[in-house]
Amino acid sequence: MNPKRCAACKYLRRKCPKDCIFSPYFPPSDPHKFACIHRIYGAGNVSKMLQQLPVQTRAEAVESLSFEAKCRVDDPVYGCVGIISLLQTQIQKTQTLLAKTQAEIAVAQTKHSQHTNLST
Amino acid sequence: MNPKRCAACKYLRRKCPKDCIFSPYFPPSDPHKFACIHRIYGAGNVSKMLQQLPVQTRAEAVESLSFEAKCRVDDPVYGCVGIISLLQTQIQKTQTLLAKTQAEIAVAQTKHSQHTNLST
Repeated sequence: MNPKRCAACKYLRRKCPKDCIFSPYFPPSDPHKFACIHRIYGAGNVSKMLQQLPVQTRAEAVESLSFEAKCRVDDPVYGCVGIISLLQTQIQKTQTLLAKTQAEIAVAQTKHSQHTNLST
Repeated sequence: MNPKRCAACKYLRRKCPKDCIFSPYFPPSDPHKFACIHRIYGAGNVSKMLQQLPVQTRAEAVESLSFEAKCRVDDPVYGCVGIISLLQTQIQKTQTLLAKTQAEIAVAQTKHSQHTNLST
């Protein structure tokens, strides 16, 4: 057993090669991260996706894939699309409240100018 | 060749079985939908995910998986997490605008009541 194996190679029960594509992004301290990604995408697909990306963007890609995988494990029907729907609802509510508040301002300003005109 | 094969079986170059798990959700008219899902998740993973779900939730699961896969093809680094970030920024902007507008109302109301007190 090699205690320096990354979480991916440990999960896949293989030797961690020097040029391991997973190693920089899956430290042995966080085994759950790779387990989630593996369950949803499969190790081969993730490896393929990472290989197609420039090295400097891979860490961010792993984070977003990991986030999506965790969402899919938590919510197998909607995944992180469920979060998108919730955020869209929140935007609509806030926009409606904003429009209502802006309308209140317009009414208050009209009343104020009428009042000013009457008192002069 | 069987013209009635679903898009998944056509893509996988296999016979479409009577109880095909993909067939209800991947009509032959939309081959791109399965191609995207296959590229990101792999047919085996999608089949496994669908099998673990009650039949009545599978159509929605396919739609959300399909959406996430398309986002990942379009944006290989951020996928649909990029959309979540954009929506969160939009919510913050709208909430800031709302707070500003509500503060304007408070100021206008204070001025109005001061004006009313002075003129009575």
